[in-house]
Amino acid sequence: MTPENFDAVDVIAAKRDGHRLSTAQISWVIDAYTRGVVADEQMAALAMAIFINDMEPGEIADWTQAMIASGERMDFSSLSRPTSDKHSTGGVGDKITLPLAPLVAVFDVAVPQLSGRGLGHTGGTLDKLESIPGWRAELSNAEILHQLEDVGAVICAAGSGLAPADKKLYALRDTTSTVDCIPLIASSIMSKKIAEGTAGLVLDVKVGSGAFMKDLDKARQLARTMVDLGTAAGVKTSALLTDMSTPLGLTVGNALEVRESVEVLAGGGPSDVVELTVALAEEMLRLAGRTDVDVREALADGRAMDAWKRMIRAQNGDPDAPLPAAEHTEVVTASETGVLSRLDALAVGVASWRLGAGRARKEDPVQAVAGIELHAKPGDQVSAGQPLLTLHTATLERFGRAVEALEGAVEIGGDTSGLRDSVVFETIT
Amino acid sequence: MTPENFDAVDVIAAKRDGHRLSTAQISWVIDAYTRGVVADEQMAALAMAIFINDMEPGEIADWTQAMIASGERMDFSSLSRPTSDKHSTGGVGDKITLPLAPLVAVFDVAVPQLSGRGLGHTGGTLDKLESIPGWRAELSNAEILHQLEDVGAVICAAGSGLAPADKKLYALRDTTSTVDCIPLIASSIMSKKIAEGTAGLVLDVKVGSGAFMKDLDKARQLARTMVDLGTAAGVKTSALLTDMSTPLGLTVGNALEVRESVEVLAGGGPSDVVELTVALAEEMLRLAGRTDVDVREALADGRAMDAWKRMIRAQNGDPDAPLPAAEHTEVVTASETGVLSRLDALAVGVASWRLGAGRARKEDPVQAVAGIELHAKPGDQVSAGQPLLTLHTATLERFGRAVEALEGAVEIGGDTSGLRDSVVFETIT
Repeated sequence: MTPENFDAVDVIAAKRDGHRLSTAQISWVIDAYTRGVVADEQMAALAMAIFINDMEPGEIADWTQAMIASGERMDFSSLSRPTSDKHSTGGVGDKITLPLAPLVAVFDVAVPQLSGRGLGHTGGTLDKLESIPGWRAELSNAEILHQLEDVGAVICAAGSGLAPADKKLYALRDTTSTVDCIPLIASSIMSKKIAEGTAGLVLDVKVGSGAFMKDLDKARQLARTMVDLGTAAGVKTSALLTDMSTPLGLTVGNALEVRESVEVLAGGGPSDVVELTVALAEEMLRLAGRTDVDVREALADGRAMDAWKRMIRAQNGDPDAPLPAAEHTEVVTASETGVLSRLDALAVGVASWRLGAGRARKEDPVQAVAGIELHAKPGDQVSAGQPLLTLHTATLERFGRAVEALEGAVEIGGDTSGLRDSVVFETIT
Repeated sequence: MTPENFDAVDVIAAKRDGHRLSTAQISWVIDAYTRGVVADEQMAALAMAIFINDMEPGEIADWTQAMIASGERMDFSSLSRPTSDKHSTGGVGDKITLPLAPLVAVFDVAVPQLSGRGLGHTGGTLDKLESIPGWRAELSNAEILHQLEDVGAVICAAGSGLAPADKKLYALRDTTSTVDCIPLIASSIMSKKIAEGTAGLVLDVKVGSGAFMKDLDKARQLARTMVDLGTAAGVKTSALLTDMSTPLGLTVGNALEVRESVEVLAGGGPSDVVELTVALAEEMLRLAGRTDVDVREALADGRAMDAWKRMIRAQNGDPDAPLPAAEHTEVVTASETGVLSRLDALAVGVASWRLGAGRARKEDPVQAVAGIELHAKPGDQVSAGQPLLTLHTATLERFGRAVEALEGAVEIGGDTSGLRDSVVFETIT
């Protein structure tokens, strides 16, 4: 079908004046932008008009479909088992994908986890796995299919063929202050996930200082928008709203988070990481029709660990090799005695990033060893002088700015009434 | 003074969220855009945010000053006489600058009329004058100063050194649907006029179908904004709101409009052209302190014509040479008998443009001979079959699309209660 021909100036003016863009206009403008017929400055003006004047649900669905249509779609229908995937909006210490994918695979549900690399203060799943000696992130589509059939889980780099319009638009939004906009966030995430071809999808929408969404209402709105987009596109979709006011677990950083993930797969690990892993696994399995399963048992009896090892080995990694460790560490201690009332996720994320765990530009390298260990979590009793955090890096001179980032991040003896036992706030289906 | 350093993303976000940009932010962003440090897509996003969220008067003044500071400023303080200039927001058949500049010069007030070329359905002053054999539009700054002292009036091409930020932004706005926005229009016009260095400035703000502003309220708002900007910058500024629902005079097109201008300078010409020329001349002279003058007399007694001839000769033109005439003409006749109730300015402008009088892109050539003669004006009695319009072109095949543009432009026997005797609606000081 040849798309109708529009003039970019008219499409921009329509959204500028608060009108709903038609399906044909959206289809044309995304296609023309991907082909370079609509220029970056025109898309920037349109993105700003969308940011300020919003889009209706139908428009967001059209926008998402147009971005999917800009590239290839994967197809897992030849697999002998159902597929179910998870997407997180990004948080500090969020290593959940690592134990989650093999855990779900235990129950004969295939997990096609195609990921990007981390940018900014939240780490990337691929960066974490690359701290495992030998492990490779790049797989062909044939290798992905084979591994899903054989192992049941794959975590690898998303090919550039999925939703190329989104890739181009994402970079543009970053420099034009049009990032923090629900229609554009939701369509960006969902176009990639729908193009990926998963049958089920659970969204982990983070809320709190370390998350993109700082308040629950906005996170709920984003979750609702994405669930509706997925459902309309034939993907069984649900969302968990989860806490990101403090880091997940007791480690932040690449190799450190792999270590903690392995602890969870061995039946241990911090309770919040276990809770979220189990909740997401149960929801992914529910979407795939597996309701009568005991997920915690698969962590306790070694079946999840076996799946993990098969998954790592299938991508040339050695799951038994020692992980790299930092040459330099520095301890931050508690300044007073009392209950730890706050340990700010964003500050810890930025500090870890400055230690070398993350990148500022996509071509920057990351350190496998850099990161932060937490020795207490909000709600814990601490004593003056006891270790609170251990900072890790390969580059001694990075400690200074990392410690600066932690300024004001720790509070002892403050109000603890807002602290919760559970990481999961609510589920949206 | 080294400007403070900002991040474009923060400046865009501030306007996106409806905040007032600071003087320092505006100064930085305009300078950085001129130098290419702020990219086109970033300025496009900012322009859209300004379009939707508006700017306060103080912000518009800052924006205008920053655009002036992006380039050179001319200085006419060495002249022995005061300067006064006119700017029109553009209309169909608007040849007023041609008789106006020499008319004002008669009274020892210098008129530095630095113009651009026409784009779209309103013709450019330079294009009109270039139909005079030998006349040249390009003058150096020294030549401009010399001619102002010697002749008292100059109409020439504005150098690219005045407000280069505006030049860059103007082209960007054209492709990003951010043209029709009072803060951006006002700052664009006034930055060039203030940089030009005139001491007095009369703005001819057109209202009606052939004008940029279709309704009186918006035109008044634009005029008010520009008068305030000029006044704040030390330029004596006032504005006339004038009718552009039907073309000015009886000719539209380059050589045709020169012919009519010469008729006015010879003491004749259509009454609306004379009225507006006289009104603008009196206002320009008032701003220069010349209140006790008889402008109509200077048209009647040949002094304005003498000044015109000196002005044309000073730029190598031959004011006595015959003007070029079109090889092809076609007459449009009245379809019925009655009072001509409407002759639409926009339609006539577009038809003239399609006949070859205007350009679609700035590198296109224009025909000196193309255009339209009007044989009746709204309010005149016409008879079925009498000539209403004569279309002129050097290119026979252009008649078809020109006639198409005139579809619905002529109305006979309709409501005439809205017709006015006067071209000038009101004066804003």
